[in-house]
Amino acid sequence: MKKNILVIPGDGIGPEVTTWGKAALEKIAEIFGHEFVFDEALMGHAAIEVTGEPLPDETLEKARKSDAILFGAIGHAKYDNDPSLKVRPEQGLLKIRKELGLFANLRPILLFDELLEASSIKAEILRGTDILFFRELTGDVYFGEKNRSEDRNTASDLMIYHRYEVERIAHKAYQAAQQRSKRLCSVDKANVLESSRLWRETVQEIAKQYPDVETEHMFIDNAAMQLIKNPKKFDVVLTANLFGDILTDEASQIAGSMGMLASASVGESTGFFEPIHGSAHDIAGKDLANPLASILSAALMLEIGFGLKEEAKLLVDTIDQVLKEGFRTHDIADQTTNRFKVLGTAEMGKLVMK
Amino acid sequence: MKKNILVIPGDGIGPEVTTWGKAALEKIAEIFGHEFVFDEALMGHAAIEVTGEPLPDETLEKARKSDAILFGAIGHAKYDNDPSLKVRPEQGLLKIRKELGLFANLRPILLFDELLEASSIKAEILRGTDILFFRELTGDVYFGEKNRSEDRNTASDLMIYHRYEVERIAHKAYQAAQQRSKRLCSVDKANVLESSRLWRETVQEIAKQYPDVETEHMFIDNAAMQLIKNPKKFDVVLTANLFGDILTDEASQIAGSMGMLASASVGESTGFFEPIHGSAHDIAGKDLANPLASILSAALMLEIGFGLKEEAKLLVDTIDQVLKEGFRTHDIADQTTNRFKVLGTAEMGKLVMK
Ligand SMILES: CC(C)[C@H](C(=O)O)[C@@H](O)C(=O)O
Ligand SMILES: CC(C)[C@H](C(=O)O)[C@@H](O)C(=O)O
Repeated sequence: MKKNILVIPGDGIGPEVTTWGKAALEKIAEIFGHEFVFDEALMGHAAIEVTGEPLPDETLEKARKSDAILFGAIGHAKYDNDPSLKVRPEQGLLKIRKELGLFANLRPILLFDELLEASSIKAEILRGTDILFFRELTGDVYFGEKNRSEDRNTASDLMIYHRYEVERIAHKAYQAAQQRSKRLCSVDKANVLESSRLWRETVQEIAKQYPDVETEHMFIDNAAMQLIKNPKKFDVVLTANLFGDILTDEASQIAGSMGMLASASVGESTGFFEPIHGSAHDIAGKDLANPLASILSAALMLEIGFGLKEEAKLLVDTIDQVLKEGFRTHDIADQTTNRFKVLGTAEMGKLVMK
Repeated sequence: MKKNILVIPGDGIGPEVTTWGKAALEKIAEIFGHEFVFDEALMGHAAIEVTGEPLPDETLEKARKSDAILFGAIGHAKYDNDPSLKVRPEQGLLKIRKELGLFANLRPILLFDELLEASSIKAEILRGTDILFFRELTGDVYFGEKNRSEDRNTASDLMIYHRYEVERIAHKAYQAAQQRSKRLCSVDKANVLESSRLWRETVQEIAKQYPDVETEHMFIDNAAMQLIKNPKKFDVVLTANLFGDILTDEASQIAGSMGMLASASVGESTGFFEPIHGSAHDIAGKDLANPLASILSAALMLEIGFGLKEEAKLLVDTIDQVLKEGFRTHDIADQTTNRFKVLGTAEMGKLVMK
């Protein structure tokens, strides 16, 4: 199989982890005889520094031409500390999601047995958890009109949904639920928000087309609680952009660490694959980051982007093996015991490649 | 001390738990020689059934005249299942918050040692946690303009903040932080939302007036994760209405159960005290609800509303004692052991009164 892959390392720990996601793809190509052609492009703070733009035209062009994109992370302390800056790294990520029509963000909460102990949640609560989030990615308060009054004393963002936006992601989520345990939980705040009432209404309509799937509707506050109380209760979770952002980060504690979770954004054509962790500028360049989420992003690209199930499985199994052998990065090592062999980013990356 | 207290039982389990919050206040009045004069009023589904309105004028009038309000819960399955209904129970709660100017919602995450084991989170992660949330309560996407297009295919809610709204709650939170461990974490989504950028800017300004308090700014997605990963890291948490709704429900898992958390809404005059749990219509009327959050709401009324610290402490200590003796309601009983004496709502209420 021949594929063009664009690598966008981005900011903070992005470059150091993406190195290993890319290496994993190269290794897979070698083993299975595929031809992956790589190109690279700038986005975020890294792009602002060079071009003044968070998403340069050149990057967008390359993105449109590629079959899939491997992305690292975005964001920089400079902007976080100064909310008044007009040009911001995250605008690059939001714009590429919108321009490529990446409306469905899939976030599987994959639990490695070996990491049950790394979580702050009790192992017996976690064991057996297997959740697939469908987060809407190109609507909501992320993309609604933003306003700041002239005196700068009032600021607003419009939380807005169109019916077709809810329908298309709902179909994707229901189709996935049919392939899994046939349970879907839709999360909203319909007791307060009009956009959530449209969301709930629409999901209720779509549900009728999937009578074999059992639907539950839950308020976001309750969901944030239930996810910790009893994560096994969830299978496919369907939710809006903002609620999905919050819930999936929270759910990373189920997987033991944010450093273990990857996501796939799909929609109209090119797929976009990235770790769910952020740029973590406090540890950037220190060889402390966990490269496994980037390698798992590569696995999602193989499986969801290219339909290469066996190849994806090899990556996941290899990571499982490395964990079984007691190797850990800092974020998933229980520092109170010395059962683990704690590795830096590069050592862990190399080990998985071997 | 003489005080007029309005009791609003509300919907679902509201009436059965509020009975015990009120009983606790009566008991305290008896022991300490105060005079508490009670009145009662309708709100929510209970009010719609009788008057057609979720917040009848009579309730609002009584509320304005009272010194403090003890509230139960709001909401009903009928409305949750039919998002198209125009008159909704929750409108009553939102309106009374707005009308009484209750802009600051205080949610202490009080950890009873005896309940460490009831949480899905590991006891060693929880031990020592003591968080006080300041949730803004009369702004945000809760109160911004709501719209539905004529064809009903587009719906929106305006997420909006004015600088003075952020300032007044920030002052309250900083003042509380000065009395506690002098650490404050402000939670927003300033990397995406303009309203959050105003929030962050304003908090940065107010922070300068409290140089003895250490301020941290955190994105909501990260906060939802850190809260589970390392709750001890938080002390005073300051956040907007929607983010506070989500984070505090999530934080209920730190306390072992939603049935153990109370909140105080304060602002211009009359204080409003309520459990953070909802109406839980699935268990309503079954003698299964936990009355302790209502009794703890009464304790918050005594402490924050009336400045009666000793009286409040007696209630908290009594609950602690009851838990130490092994008594539990269903939600906080570990069903896998038979170490606990599991009680219904009324039995637990009576026990605490004794
Ligand atoms: C960096 C930020 C804009 C982004 C988001 O909020 O979508 C991130 O948190 C994510 O979850 O992908
Ligand atoms: C019932 C609902 C409107 C309310 C809210 O969202 O504020 C509740 O969840 C709360 O937290 O008090």
